[in-house]
Amino acid sequence: MHPIHIVALLAVMQFFYFGAKVGRARAQYGIKAPAVTGHEMFERAYRVQMNTLEQLVGFLPALLIAGAYWPQAAVAAIGAVYLIGRALYRHQYMQDPARRATGFALTVLPTAILLLAGLVGAIAR
Amino acid sequence: MHPIHIVALLAVMQFFYFGAKVGRARAQYGIKAPAVTGHEMFERAYRVQMNTLEQLVGFLPALLIAGAYWPQAAVAAIGAVYLIGRALYRHQYMQDPARRATGFALTVLPTAILLLAGLVGAIAR
Amino acid sequence: MHPIHIVALLAVMQFFYFGAKVGRARAQYGIKAPAVTGHEMFERAYRVQMNTLEQLVGFLPALLIAGAYWPQAAVAAIGAVYLIGRALYRHQYMQDPARRATGFALTVLPTAILLLAGLVGAIAR
Repeated sequence: MHPIHIVALLAVMQFFYFGAKVGRARAQYGIKAPAVTGHEMFERAYRVQMNTLEQLVGFLPALLIAGAYWPQAAVAAIGAVYLIGRALYRHQYMQDPARRATGFALTVLPTAILLLAGLVGAIAR
Repeated sequence: MHPIHIVALLAVMQFFYFGAKVGRARAQYGIKAPAVTGHEMFERAYRVQMNTLEQLVGFLPALLIAGAYWPQAAVAAIGAVYLIGRALYRHQYMQDPARRATGFALTVLPTAILLLAGLVGAIAR
Repeated sequence: MHPIHIVALLAVMQFFYFGAKVGRARAQYGIKAPAVTGHEMFERAYRVQMNTLEQLVGFLPALLIAGAYWPQAAVAAIGAVYLIGRALYRHQYMQDPARRATGFALTVLPTAILLLAGLVGAIAR
């Protein structure tokens, strides 16, 4: 078993799930492509997807590079916090964008730890 | 030869090509940065680029991780379908955003297969 | 020391730094999520972040794949030009979006070189 690869692939699947929700909101609120505005709930779903895109682009290399230097289980466990944080972020953001702080922190923090762990590993070894 | 790396780099080049098309549309329709709206054809080119960005962020790790567990040629061949699907997606979207379904499916399907193949590999081996 | 990993992680950190600047501009100019328009300076910061996202998604795989075929120090040095180019790009764009060409070229050029170097390596070896 390669737990880091599993976490990486689950993070991608979660992102695509958020994207599917945007597609559904597009249909539900009658927002025709290429428009990305027109209904508050569509815009929330879209912003969640975009923010997750931004986070994922940093999370994946941080996860994989940290995994080249540190124990697989520890790196994967930190990555799992990201997955939970993102799920919470979407849930909170859809209810009220002003309440997105906890989920956001639980995404940014594990990524920051993995970035620093990877940097220490890449410098020291 | 490393066919998976070739497909990965071609997917990045294709994405940058779509980005160059957005730059050209920006000049052609007089949309000055930072605006991203103002002309239907510019907005289509921009949405194609953004959607390709979303897809690429999932496709690349799925391709590379699947390649760690399955035969190179098979993984690269599935990846090549993504490249063709994206080219079709852009072509269709620029003609009529409502007709983008085939190209979209031919991008999402190979990525979904690679995600599942990678997940099975990462769990089983 | 693994200089390519260091450059990759620094590129991610730079991107997150640009993202933090967007968050700050959001507060400063009173742009409430999910809105991404409303003040010229916020829109500039947002466009810098989005353009960096587009570049990073291509830069990271190009850097890592080129690093599989060519000397670490050379690949990392080309990657370092990207980091400097992006810093310049943001500086120029915030001052005047029309003056973003130099920084943009210093990001696109190293990525293009890495893409071609990776492609040559993946085909020839």
